Amino acid sequence: MYDIENRYDREGLLEEAESFVRECYTELDKEAEIEDRIAEIRAEIRERGHYDHTYEELEHGAKMAWRNSNRCVGRLFWDTLEVIDERDLETPAEIHEACCRHIEHGRNGGDIVPTITVFKPIVPGEQQVRIWNYELLRYAGYETEDGIVGDPAETEFTEYCLSRGWEPERTDFDILPHVIQVGEEDPSMFEVPDSVVEEVELTHPDYEWFADLGLKWIDVPIVSNMCLEIGGIRYTAAPFNGWYLSTEIGARNLTDEDRYDMLPEVAQRLGLDTSEDRSLWKDEATLAIHRAVIHSFDEAGVRITDPHEVTDQFEQFEHNENAEGRDITGDWSWLIPPTNPATTQVFHSSYDEEVKTPNFFYQEDPDLISE
Amino acid sequence: MYDIENRYDREGLLEEAESFVRECYTELDKEAEIEDRIAEIRAEIRERGHYDHTYEELEHGAKMAWRNSNRCVGRLFWDTLEVIDERDLETPAEIHEACCRHIEHGRNGGDIVPTITVFKPIVPGEQQVRIWNYELLRYAGYETEDGIVGDPAETEFTEYCLSRGWEPERTDFDILPHVIQVGEEDPSMFEVPDSVVEEVELTHPDYEWFADLGLKWIDVPIVSNMCLEIGGIRYTAAPFNGWYLSTEIGARNLTDEDRYDMLPEVAQRLGLDTSEDRSLWKDEATLAIHRAVIHSFDEAGVRITDPHEVTDQFEQFEHNENAEGRDITGDWSWLIPPTNPATTQVFHSSYDEEVKTPNFFYQEDPDLISE
Ligand code: HEM
Ligand code: HEM
Repeated sequence: MYDIENRYDREGLLEEAESFVRECYTELDKEAEIEDRIAEIRAEIRERGHYDHTYEELEHGAKMAWRNSNRCVGRLFWDTLEVIDERDLETPAEIHEACCRHIEHGRNGGDIVPTITVFKPIVPGEQQVRIWNYELLRYAGYETEDGIVGDPAETEFTEYCLSRGWEPERTDFDILPHVIQVGEEDPSMFEVPDSVVEEVELTHPDYEWFADLGLKWIDVPIVSNMCLEIGGIRYTAAPFNGWYLSTEIGARNLTDEDRYDMLPEVAQRLGLDTSEDRSLWKDEATLAIHRAVIHSFDEAGVRITDPHEVTDQFEQFEHNENAEGRDITGDWSWLIPPTNPATTQVFHSSYDEEVKTPNFFYQEDPDLISE
Repeated sequence: MYDIENRYDREGLLEEAESFVRECYTELDKEAEIEDRIAEIRAEIRERGHYDHTYEELEHGAKMAWRNSNRCVGRLFWDTLEVIDERDLETPAEIHEACCRHIEHGRNGGDIVPTITVFKPIVPGEQQVRIWNYELLRYAGYETEDGIVGDPAETEFTEYCLSRGWEPERTDFDILPHVIQVGEEDPSMFEVPDSVVEEVELTHPDYEWFADLGLKWIDVPIVSNMCLEIGGIRYTAAPFNGWYLSTEIGARNLTDEDRYDMLPEVAQRLGLDTSEDRSLWKDEATLAIHRAVIHSFDEAGVRITDPHEVTDQFEQFEHNENAEGRDITGDWSWLIPPTNPATTQVFHSSYDEEVKTPNFFYQEDPDLISE
């Protein structure tokens, strides 16, 4: 596990800060302020090994981090990100409440707003904040004698919550509690109130039986386990959301064998020959689920994009960036959709994989079970 | 354009030869012969800047080249490759005839045999052989006032053939002539006799109208424009074939917008809403064409693999190689199928991209038009 606290020494921090400030202020047409601001930051780092971002730096830095996210195909809208500054919150309870506010703000009644809430960064000598959930709204998974109930990707985290006294209904779709840690204290656990949970029940435009499967999904994906790095400062808790790309639900979460694994059941309902993969039953069942996802979100008035729209938008993003004199970076293997990727332009392109900062990074997973 | 003649100086050639011989003879359990063979090669290179492979070296070297082809998902069968030694042929006509023999041998009445025919390599002071076709059987493409007739990927090569007096029927499916060059002479052009052409007409298991589209495809893919490199010796003409993977035809050649672009017509026949991509009509039309390809090859008794079978076989290949103490290398972006890749294990794996030799390499394209 790499030591997140010591990524930069003072010298390194200053270098990162300086190059960020130059880029940020130039993009904001505030070149005149650059040298003063750098002098200020230099003094601050000399004094306390740290510096604080202004709100404007935080806001534009978070946008740049999204813009630099090589694996994100949704980056056309990077400049519209809403940045909520919650750096002054101290307790797990306050942080949980801010997370709930984020959910409702980002959801915006279905007309989803890309949003990030930024909590206290790593500051030498101060308490570090971590949200141990992968996303702010996600389903639990339980190992049972008859196989896994719920989302297999969450069995370990669910086990921890159970060991801490969580008492769920044990359905396939229980929303996991928030597990939030400040400093070295034990993490605190908070049930997510029903009032902030919205889900989309899945129906199919052509197949009435589809509703009987009882499938649904969370309306808005809010990733909460990544570290936002801006100018050498690391925000270990900075949940962000966009809207879903339909394939994430319709061709991965519900279909992967190690997730909800719904292809066999859907294929059976479709009357397909599942005795051999060569009949392409997996492709036909994926298409049915994928269509149901798009249809249901549209009917529910919850914004969702599809692989064709989002890849067209990604091309527009590349075009816009080039027009600004910037080259885009990207990770092809994550940018292509998992459904018939060759029908999208991204498949036929290649991308520079350089990782620029500001950006979002993985950080060490909780070692909750063994604690 | 890199100068293929000068890839290795004598020193470099000897190094390549030596490391090939060690690996090859060890795999063939002939360790005892290694030192003598290397001494022999050293003398040969010192004398003429070149050495000749024994048939056994050529055979095993070609197999190793297949095994090392990072972009090939069909490598499970690398050790079954049939290697036809035609190094003594001198004239374009002889080479064309050998290509026709290759077609029939590889086809094997539908029970396709992975086969490679190896012509004279680059030898200092001798004539170099090139087959200018991309594949030994491929359809021509013509730019017309009403758009492209045939395969848009072949318009440039087709234009050259026309300029040389080729008189095709100008259908969507005219087999291109062989264009073969020896040394600095003008390339010679040879019509491919009807007797060696076999095609599979496409029908769909459920949709009778599919046959009315008049689609068909070549039965066996024989790549003829790559350079086979073994132990520092470069075989610039070494056509090889496997059998098709169904997606190559059903989700690329017939569907790509810059190839036969059949998705709109098939979608229309399927009665799909093509007014917006979000209806997933491209996915549904791809599935229909893909199913037709598998069905038609199966009905015709022509071996073809599908994305599920071939990726399972690729896992078996990886397993076999590991059991032999070898690590596999691979290019993920080429190994995943273009249809719902996440339903195959390859998508969820990652591969070392190192390029080992022996291997197949691209070589400069013909600059035929301007000649
Ligand atoms: C606005 C709509 C958005 C769409 C449609 C979108 C789409 C996607 C998709 C499809 C992925 C790949 C997910 C996966 O395969 O697991 C992804 C990854 C990512 N996105 Fe976005 N995104 C959006 C908004 C955002 C926002 C607002 C941010 C940050 C401010 C962001 C940052 C990222 C990052 C960091 C990743 C990589 C995650 C990882 O490595 O696990 N995205 N995005
Ligand atoms: C036996 C059945 C085989 C199957 C199913 C198979 C499958 C494939 C597929 C699907 C590709 C990607 C093609 C593309 O996307 O354009 C590929 C590439 C390749 N295969 Fe195979 N293959 C087979 C046999 C062979 C043989 C016999 C050789 C050589 C002896 C070979 C060498 C290669 C090479 C060099 C490439 C890369 C071509 C390039 O870079 O353009 N394959 N193969």
